[in-house]
Amino acid sequence: MEKLQTALAQIKPLDRQIMAQTQKRLDSLTKPPGSLGLLEELACQVAGITGQVCPPLPRKTCILMAGDHGVVAEGVSAFPQEVTVQMVLNFLRGGAAMNVLSRHVGSELLIVDVGVAADLPDLPGLLKRKVAYGTANMATGPAMTREQAVAALEVGIQVVQDSIARGTGLVGLGEMGIGNTTPSAAIIAVYSGRPVDQVVGRGTGLDDEGLRVKIRAIEKALAVNRPDPADPLDVLAKVGGLEIAALAGVILGAAAGRIPVITDGFISTAAALIAVGLCPTAKEYLICSHLSAEPGHSIMLEYLGLRPLLHLDMRLGEGTGAALAMFLVEAALKLLTGMATFAEAAISGALPRKK
Amino acid sequence: MEKLQTALAQIKPLDRQIMAQTQKRLDSLTKPPGSLGLLEELACQVAGITGQVCPPLPRKTCILMAGDHGVVAEGVSAFPQEVTVQMVLNFLRGGAAMNVLSRHVGSELLIVDVGVAADLPDLPGLLKRKVAYGTANMATGPAMTREQAVAALEVGIQVVQDSIARGTGLVGLGEMGIGNTTPSAAIIAVYSGRPVDQVVGRGTGLDDEGLRVKIRAIEKALAVNRPDPADPLDVLAKVGGLEIAALAGVILGAAAGRIPVITDGFISTAAALIAVGLCPTAKEYLICSHLSAEPGHSIMLEYLGLRPLLHLDMRLGEGTGAALAMFLVEAALKLLTGMATFAEAAISGALPRKK
Repeated sequence: MEKLQTALAQIKPLDRQIMAQTQKRLDSLTKPPGSLGLLEELACQVAGITGQVCPPLPRKTCILMAGDHGVVAEGVSAFPQEVTVQMVLNFLRGGAAMNVLSRHVGSELLIVDVGVAADLPDLPGLLKRKVAYGTANMATGPAMTREQAVAALEVGIQVVQDSIARGTGLVGLGEMGIGNTTPSAAIIAVYSGRPVDQVVGRGTGLDDEGLRVKIRAIEKALAVNRPDPADPLDVLAKVGGLEIAALAGVILGAAAGRIPVITDGFISTAAALIAVGLCPTAKEYLICSHLSAEPGHSIMLEYLGLRPLLHLDMRLGEGTGAALAMFLVEAALKLLTGMATFAEAAISGALPRKK
Repeated sequence: MEKLQTALAQIKPLDRQIMAQTQKRLDSLTKPPGSLGLLEELACQVAGITGQVCPPLPRKTCILMAGDHGVVAEGVSAFPQEVTVQMVLNFLRGGAAMNVLSRHVGSELLIVDVGVAADLPDLPGLLKRKVAYGTANMATGPAMTREQAVAALEVGIQVVQDSIARGTGLVGLGEMGIGNTTPSAAIIAVYSGRPVDQVVGRGTGLDDEGLRVKIRAIEKALAVNRPDPADPLDVLAKVGGLEIAALAGVILGAAAGRIPVITDGFISTAAALIAVGLCPTAKEYLICSHLSAEPGHSIMLEYLGLRPLLHLDMRLGEGTGAALAMFLVEAALKLLTGMATFAEAAISGALPRKK
């Protein structure tokens, strides 16, 4: 709990003075003011986070948290639970979509076992930080104890703090865990107060009957556990997941360490709901990469007030959207330093409209 | 006219058999079917265009067409006309946003003078293909003769054919021309039949009175010229622009040469309306990069049935959105070849839902 409390206490608002200087720099560049849209906002945000008017290109790290979910016993996923382990091994061999996109964008990729329901071999690139062998079935009781939720949060804080100590300046969120759209939907149901059928989707590919089963499982979980939206740790412990907790920890640790953090899709944004619940200022450190095809994602983003950069109808998770968005953050920072100013280029400014 | 007719005759539908093989390959990879969304569609589209199930990474070229507009005499732009020349020189010195983003994505950038209203110096990187010193004022008569429109179209066809001959496999569209949101709005007004005030925007930054002036100028141009939407060359000549014509030519030349072509924002999509008007099959070769903040852009995309990948609120033009989207095309192609299959990774497939 101490690591969590320390991180929460370290999270401060962005530096508005630096951001104003960055916007001034942007307005001096050879383009109509504001015409680079969200890329300008990204540049200002990273400046305000790092305290540098023209931040250098950051070293990039994607952190993929893996965990299992007891609620799969209800039949909420199209894939069997052993796929979590199989996919972790696939990540470690470099064969998953997330490996391809991390390589494409030039990001390091860390794979963390925070709650896989099996023992994994010792392999290079795998961080073993298991808090439990998966969560309990939230349809019949709390998914985790409050202590487990805090422990998993603190795994995330520690992993990102270690990365920052090694030089990471931009972090992307990724996850793997068969069944994890179910707790994610439960979390947004709690925060938004919407009926479960409005926030739930087909995950990796449920049929109609599977979707009904998933909705019933979440409704049971909410009825059995009665999570308190005013207490984010209560929500997290009762209807969350170990990897969701760890990702919330990554967000808080990144904000505490003053580096930007990129959300991926439905699951990592559920983690953002928890992190922002614990510390509203953490929201200022979030960059929203893409809009997932999972229907509840837009409800999460609306709740958080985040705008997605990419609209690719992806619903894979793993951090794939976050990795792609790193390219856009880099673009924003390169524009800030690589363009000529109006003065340098001797370009006539906007004139009063001709009469 | 012969170069145009030849290009139009060469444009064939995509290879559906190859596309089906690419989709089959995608479905064998370690991810839920379809979960990479539009990246999967991009991979299949490029496969269908090139006739290769797993297309290699293409050499990338952005083609930036520059031209001036007689309609600026009506007071439709916040910037004076000499900015077109000044920005062309800025591109040639590497100081514009488009230079930064072309470098970021590793694309060649060609600057083409197809209609700048001044003589430009001989400079490395500048292709001098001037058809006229800007268009005439479309508010008082046709912007171009039909012959000029065809000549500018054929400049675009030739420039992209030369690029393809040098190895280009992916082309992005860019433009520079003070005043060119005005003809672009006129073109979508003609095709959509909507009132001008629904398709017009503030361009580089008009105030309210400037916006009213711009709407009146377009209404005058439509009333004076009565462009015929059934005759794309008539629309192009009467209310288009030299750089818009040249970009339409690039689209047709790319489709004739079987390479994908990425639209940028409002102006390049106006060019796409003309190109698709001349040859509906050319639409299959288009990749839509981003949704511009210019309000008429979404109306153009709806008309064409195109979906933007990036939602960045950009309204700069130059090809900035097209350059960024090249990174996503590369991502799609890398996923196709870089991921493990379910069989290779020994991963359990989707199972029937548990009872």
